[in-house]
Amino acid sequence: MMIAKTESEAYVTQLLEDLGAIGAERGGGITRLLYSESWRRAQSFLAERMEEAGLEVRYDRVGNLYGRLPGKSPEAPVILTGSHVDTVRSGGKYDGAYGIAASLAAVRELKNRYGQPKRTLEVVSFCEEEGSRFPLAYWGSGSVSGAHPLELADTAEDPDGVLLGDAMREAGFGREDQPDPRRRDIAAFIEVHVEQGVILERTGDDIGVVETIAGQRRYIVTLEGEANHAGTTPMSMRLDALAAAAEMMLVLEKAASRAGEPLVATVGRMKTAPNIPNVIPGTVEFTLDIRHLSETLLTGFCEAVLGKFRSIAERRSVGFSIQTALLSRPVPMDPLLTGKLEQICRERGLAYRRMMSGAGHDAQSFSSLCPTAMLFVPSRAGISHSPGEYTAPEHLATGAQVLTEMLHELAYTDA
Amino acid sequence: MMIAKTESEAYVTQLLEDLGAIGAERGGGITRLLYSESWRRAQSFLAERMEEAGLEVRYDRVGNLYGRLPGKSPEAPVILTGSHVDTVRSGGKYDGAYGIAASLAAVRELKNRYGQPKRTLEVVSFCEEEGSRFPLAYWGSGSVSGAHPLELADTAEDPDGVLLGDAMREAGFGREDQPDPRRRDIAAFIEVHVEQGVILERTGDDIGVVETIAGQRRYIVTLEGEANHAGTTPMSMRLDALAAAAEMMLVLEKAASRAGEPLVATVGRMKTAPNIPNVIPGTVEFTLDIRHLSETLLTGFCEAVLGKFRSIAERRSVGFSIQTALLSRPVPMDPLLTGKLEQICRERGLAYRRMMSGAGHDAQSFSSLCPTAMLFVPSRAGISHSPGEYTAPEHLATGAQVLTEMLHELAYTDA
Repeated sequence: MMIAKTESEAYVTQLLEDLGAIGAERGGGITRLLYSESWRRAQSFLAERMEEAGLEVRYDRVGNLYGRLPGKSPEAPVILTGSHVDTVRSGGKYDGAYGIAASLAAVRELKNRYGQPKRTLEVVSFCEEEGSRFPLAYWGSGSVSGAHPLELADTAEDPDGVLLGDAMREAGFGREDQPDPRRRDIAAFIEVHVEQGVILERTGDDIGVVETIAGQRRYIVTLEGEANHAGTTPMSMRLDALAAAAEMMLVLEKAASRAGEPLVATVGRMKTAPNIPNVIPGTVEFTLDIRHLSETLLTGFCEAVLGKFRSIAERRSVGFSIQTALLSRPVPMDPLLTGKLEQICRERGLAYRRMMSGAGHDAQSFSSLCPTAMLFVPSRAGISHSPGEYTAPEHLATGAQVLTEMLHELAYTDA
Repeated sequence: MMIAKTESEAYVTQLLEDLGAIGAERGGGITRLLYSESWRRAQSFLAERMEEAGLEVRYDRVGNLYGRLPGKSPEAPVILTGSHVDTVRSGGKYDGAYGIAASLAAVRELKNRYGQPKRTLEVVSFCEEEGSRFPLAYWGSGSVSGAHPLELADTAEDPDGVLLGDAMREAGFGREDQPDPRRRDIAAFIEVHVEQGVILERTGDDIGVVETIAGQRRYIVTLEGEANHAGTTPMSMRLDALAAAAEMMLVLEKAASRAGEPLVATVGRMKTAPNIPNVIPGTVEFTLDIRHLSETLLTGFCEAVLGKFRSIAERRSVGFSIQTALLSRPVPMDPLLTGKLEQICRERGLAYRRMMSGAGHDAQSFSSLCPTAMLFVPSRAGISHSPGEYTAPEHLATGAQVLTEMLHELAYTDA
């Protein structure tokens, strides 16, 4: 099956430009927060594009937007593809938006070339994934899977104290007569996304086929030493919380290196008190972010490292406490779908690699519902969540083409 | 020479209570910033006490306050004793105030018992030492030594943009007709101070006889790595500025331990950017505060450690730059005066030790002008620069008595 590379490339690139103007800021970043004015304009824009492509457009009760191409077997479960329309604050053009653009380009192309599929194809623009406005990420795909019941809307508040439910209603959603977001009719979910990492750029691969979305552990570690005068307190009489933290950070780094890829472990945020040049730090609070594709290895690593931290704190007579901030299990992609994606890449002569997704995605909401697969395209320098986010048009096009062929196989053939 | 312990103790304790009420805050801390209203009241209060004690009171042009007991030989250089009246924000009752109280108690006692001394005795309340309002510490004693020319008053601004010179004039100082602060007529300067450290409390000594005021090096180290996604960036592809800082902090700690007392080395303040839990830290800035009583050892230590830091940064491919924030040489106290203080302690059966002053003091301004000596009394738990600052009345009294005997020897005898 041949798809005109330039037409697909042009469609996706143009869609991303147009969508990237919605919520664009003077500094170059894009901010489209759930239910905001720019968010509404973006969904309206996509709804128009879906209509233009000949799809049946509808929203569900939480504002997820679907464009449907009905199949010859209407009762057969649906092949779903898409991503999220919201952004982080001052984000880039590609995160989420690319998945929607590629899905729309693919389904439009398939309809134009092959007409009605055997099974229904739907493009989705999920209303929210990033958790950048309300402390509730994956509100879109989580509502579809049932992980986030509608009642949660009345518990989450944004930094200005606005309830998610109120914002939802003000945006025209949350009505009883609108379709329940939960779905049980999905046969498969395929998502394409920019990698947000540096692996594909470094290895020179065109496509990353995701095997597993990493499990995550996030902790907050608090150390209590004794603040004291930096000039008058001998080294042997100190309880320096920052020195203790430094020892722990090095232990973490060494353990992560020893564990080997794909384990990643990061101390991203650190608070020191009193944080004055001539005072020994009495209190330090730092975050841990640890990810791996194996639940067993992830749990084992965390237990071992936190145990080492405890020993260090004891030896240094520094108070030690841990709070678990996040615990999410690895999410495996469907082996058959993943195998199909690889086969498509091989047949097209594309350089590809199997890889872990270090970041969370809407695909993880679906894994318990139906077979799910993801593919990545390279990100320049791994930059994401910033205006510097970039993927070259040829890579955008390649991802869209692989997706198109995948959807063709799933919706038009009997394979 | 016998001094009624209880009378001296009562005088000093009462003076500290009264002075401690001036600038007192609801939280228990004391704030008396240079030239502020509470500062003026404190100096007025002390001027009254000096008059009550029969001393001739005068201010100099920058607001240093002197109480003079003229000697039989008026041209002979002056024996000076005292400390600073200002505080840090929300400081304690003893830092600086104790030195003034002990000096006043001592000179008052000597006058009452022995009348006119051979050499003139003066008690001084220096206007400023802490650098807590303007970025110019030792404004008081530095004006006396000449280290701080008067012109500096028109360069220093407080956080509200007020010029030191304007504040000085508004407080009634800075006039041509007021005495030039610079003095060339001082034979010796003796300062008593609370230790602000834990050594005397731990060793159980009553008195610390200062040998040297530590030299200091303060640096700001900036590391530039690469901020990136904590989930998607493999460990081997990271330039983690915080991990680099952690390695450096441990190296510093080990080197300081190996160097042994009295070297102290501290990372007190650290800034991490972007300081977000799921982003690898791209930039870290941390302070170094290193002190020792030997200029050679201090310089050697800093060179070695900064060299190690540079190597670590290179190995980790992290950008590295250092800014020197402070460079002050160790200040030796006068051996003869120090020897006299020890002799007095021995004769009184006091437990004492020779020690380094890890903190800077007004005494360091005088060391180039005249023989200088300092003695310390214990600080509970080493707490300073906070309302928790405390020294027991008996220790306060002991320090005042040693000072009295020292001043007697210097001003009343031919020794």
